Amino acid sequence: MSSESKFTHLTPDGRPVMVDVSAKPTTNRVAIAQSLVRMQSSTRDAIVHQAIRKGDVLSIAQLAGIMAAKKTSDLIPLCHHVPLHHVSLELNFVDEVEQRDEAVLSIQAKVETAYQTGVEMEALTACSVAALTVYDMCKALDRGMVIEQVRLMYKAGGKSGVFQAIPTS
Amino acid sequence: MSSESKFTHLTPDGRPVMVDVSAKPTTNRVAIAQSLVRMQSSTRDAIVHQAIRKGDVLSIAQLAGIMAAKKTSDLIPLCHHVPLHHVSLELNFVDEVEQRDEAVLSIQAKVETAYQTGVEMEALTACSVAALTVYDMCKALDRGMVIEQVRLMYKAGGKSGVFQAIPTS
Amino acid sequence: MSSESKFTHLTPDGRPVMVDVSAKPTTNRVAIAQSLVRMQSSTRDAIVHQAIRKGDVLSIAQLAGIMAAKKTSDLIPLCHHVPLHHVSLELNFVDEVEQRDEAVLSIQAKVETAYQTGVEMEALTACSVAALTVYDMCKALDRGMVIEQVRLMYKAGGKSGVFQAIPTS
Amino acid sequence: MSSESKFTHLTPDGRPVMVDVSAKPTTNRVAIAQSLVRMQSSTRDAIVHQAIRKGDVLSIAQLAGIMAAKKTSDLIPLCHHVPLHHVSLELNFVDEVEQRDEAVLSIQAKVETAYQTGVEMEALTACSVAALTVYDMCKALDRGMVIEQVRLMYKAGGKSGVFQAIPTS
Amino acid sequence: MSSESKFTHLTPDGRPVMVDVSAKPTTNRVAIAQSLVRMQSSTRDAIVHQAIRKGDVLSIAQLAGIMAAKKTSDLIPLCHHVPLHHVSLELNFVDEVEQRDEAVLSIQAKVETAYQTGVEMEALTACSVAALTVYDMCKALDRGMVIEQVRLMYKAGGKSGVFQAIPTS
Amino acid sequence: MSSESKFTHLTPDGRPVMVDVSAKPTTNRVAIAQSLVRMQSSTRDAIVHQAIRKGDVLSIAQLAGIMAAKKTSDLIPLCHHVPLHHVSLELNFVDEVEQRDEAVLSIQAKVETAYQTGVEMEALTACSVAALTVYDMCKALDRGMVIEQVRLMYKAGGKSGVFQAIPTS
Repeated sequence: MSSESKFTHLTPDGRPVMVDVSAKPTTNRVAIAQSLVRMQSSTRDAIVHQAIRKGDVLSIAQLAGIMAAKKTSDLIPLCHHVPLHHVSLELNFVDEVEQRDEAVLSIQAKVETAYQTGVEMEALTACSVAALTVYDMCKALDRGMVIEQVRLMYKAGGKSGVFQAIPTS
Repeated sequence: MSSESKFTHLTPDGRPVMVDVSAKPTTNRVAIAQSLVRMQSSTRDAIVHQAIRKGDVLSIAQLAGIMAAKKTSDLIPLCHHVPLHHVSLELNFVDEVEQRDEAVLSIQAKVETAYQTGVEMEALTACSVAALTVYDMCKALDRGMVIEQVRLMYKAGGKSGVFQAIPTS
Repeated sequence: MSSESKFTHLTPDGRPVMVDVSAKPTTNRVAIAQSLVRMQSSTRDAIVHQAIRKGDVLSIAQLAGIMAAKKTSDLIPLCHHVPLHHVSLELNFVDEVEQRDEAVLSIQAKVETAYQTGVEMEALTACSVAALTVYDMCKALDRGMVIEQVRLMYKAGGKSGVFQAIPTS
Repeated sequence: MSSESKFTHLTPDGRPVMVDVSAKPTTNRVAIAQSLVRMQSSTRDAIVHQAIRKGDVLSIAQLAGIMAAKKTSDLIPLCHHVPLHHVSLELNFVDEVEQRDEAVLSIQAKVETAYQTGVEMEALTACSVAALTVYDMCKALDRGMVIEQVRLMYKAGGKSGVFQAIPTS
Repeated sequence: MSSESKFTHLTPDGRPVMVDVSAKPTTNRVAIAQSLVRMQSSTRDAIVHQAIRKGDVLSIAQLAGIMAAKKTSDLIPLCHHVPLHHVSLELNFVDEVEQRDEAVLSIQAKVETAYQTGVEMEALTACSVAALTVYDMCKALDRGMVIEQVRLMYKAGGKSGVFQAIPTS
Repeated sequence: MSSESKFTHLTPDGRPVMVDVSAKPTTNRVAIAQSLVRMQSSTRDAIVHQAIRKGDVLSIAQLAGIMAAKKTSDLIPLCHHVPLHHVSLELNFVDEVEQRDEAVLSIQAKVETAYQTGVEMEALTACSVAALTVYDMCKALDRGMVIEQVRLMYKAGGKSGVFQAIPTS
């Protein structure tokens, strides 16, 4: 079997296509993705202090993530437009961080649909854009923030079945 | 000085705003950002083998990154719409990777403008969406790929001057 | 029962979510909304005189309303993308207006679908954008125009059943 | 002078055009618009109770308004795309309302630019979409909410000079 | 029968509507469209020479066509948003051209869905935007390129059944 | 000189880029493009008969063309977002057609700006989308309509100066 055929978005002769999902059954599908934002602990303190008031950084990032999930097919060239049944994001600071003066924000997105293709890209896009929004809102404080570990954590539904990310030690 | 005032996108009482850039001078601005995609070495081999043919994974990701840079203000809630003068992306596999069976794709985006606000978010968005596009095109091969180290590498222009990321050891 | 639980778009702890519609049945749904544009009677005369020619204000506003209905989920953060089966708008000047030198344009939008959630927001968005388009096209004549009474008139389908607006006396 | 020529967006023979602004000077421009949302007082109570927690109705509406201002030229057919320098919204409940069991939310948007055409439509669009977002988030509680008095309050800059809305008694 | 009733997108009194497809059954639908780009043979040579390297003109045009198919309902005012199951484009230089110093690029798009309305417009939009992208990328070489013969070649599914274009002699 | 360097949107090694326009001066620029729609004469009669009423095919196509010009940079991957100063379209039936039972609709778009790059793509996109809209609205009458001769007629401004299409005999 040649390597080209492994790419579902490329024809055997290497042309990009939007994969034909006509023959795939409509099934319930869920995907959970994650991203992390590593920042200075002083930046975390500023976010947390702000977050007790309305209009805080985290809820703006959350909303940006939800709205971005709806735009996934507009951003990722060969993605189908999937009607989303549910999108939610959770943003929490991680307690244990190896570096004293650093803090890590964890972003987790869950997306659900009943369709002929999955919603992994929607969950990953939501996590990426939420993290970028945190960066945008805090960049005047901390331009060295890093978005890390953007990855699929779990998916279910569809022919390829369940995927569960291997925990990083 | 209270912490709220550090957030340029929030008013002192915590309301989100699109920052007033009226008084800022138009200056030449450049931003360079990066993202990495960690994958199985067999996935890299498939991409590289494919890449000698037209329509390959890397050039589709490159184009997706350029197009995403133009949509940044539509994705990041409080971002200004900045007219971009130049956008380019480079995607290369990194030679030295600590794990034998892993490979790392490096994505670097450069964005330039002459405007009253910078283009860091455009460069970061280009890198994120290019990485997500690689994930989308290879996910049938390798659902465990991880997008890492999305970060600003360099920026120049504007009041805050030059920023240069500290190299990670 | 706490007040938070009344907001379908917020979780019990106040985070925004795109409501899960997975368990809702697909039913035929219709929504009718309205908006009014109050203007000087001389502005109405100019519109009416123009309207006997092609390319008039009212048909441009009508088209803008239809196109806006399709963009509702892009504008309203927690709205689902609903595939619309039918959109139509009617724009008519209201005969009886209390003020001699004033005129009132009535805009009514009807939207239909068969889906797991309703199309109230699509009908309201169509009416709002059509009214804004009238404002845009006539603002050089009459900057004091006011958009009034943007409201849902009727909806049917879905668990909450039929809603009929109470007529304003 | 024929009435057609009064419509800046229509040619003398009635065809729609995007007005030529080439000859207009770039000047600082500001526009302030308003909308009101009339609701049951119990709906106001639910919003206010919620608003002490993060992710509340008003801050989501605020953000939706800011993002909508950036999409104005995509919604209003003959509007120019104007680079916005500043967008802010304020949402407050009005104290004095004539009806005991009713409450009124006031939304005010301010938009600024330095360009060859004004930002009235951006301010009005921000107010309309913020009000629609409040409707969307509260509609399960109160489907009879009405958006009222969407209007331009003030504008300055450009050939037509300052406009100030006449206060409604 | 009056001529107005022939236009499915206009009501009997001439108002534009998004046609009601509620009563139409969901059937498998396919549409194939074509466009041609006539250019100087030296432009073809430059494209072909470039095309052996990654990132070439033809694969960028191909991707632009696929992405445009997804945006059809945003471009064509009265088009429904149709969930696309499959989109592919083929771009080939035509061997036989009547003029010695000219070359003709043929673009063919195939779009499939299972929905209540067809995908002719999606296929035609993909062909048009792919051709425009070729123009954009080659215009510095050959500003006199002409896009020709944008037409529906074939469609199947739906009440009106199969359409097959009559070959041009 | 190698052929790659002729493509302004590709780097010497064939990667796509959004061309750097930083060093280009801002000049007044105008572009005029054209498209033709060939149809049955009975289709022309239906359009013309309809066109004496409001909401006709031609004014909807005109508006679609104007709105599409504003979306050009979203459709054409390597196009800059250019702030448009003026967009207008003219749609007219051509008197002389070689075939008795055929009619030809001529669409002409004019776009103006003062910027660092031209507006040829905006004018061509406007003509293409206006023609596609005519197709969409008339396709139930005449599925064999053909869009022809989409081409740049004239451009001025910028380093490459004036371009004037050679008339087709």
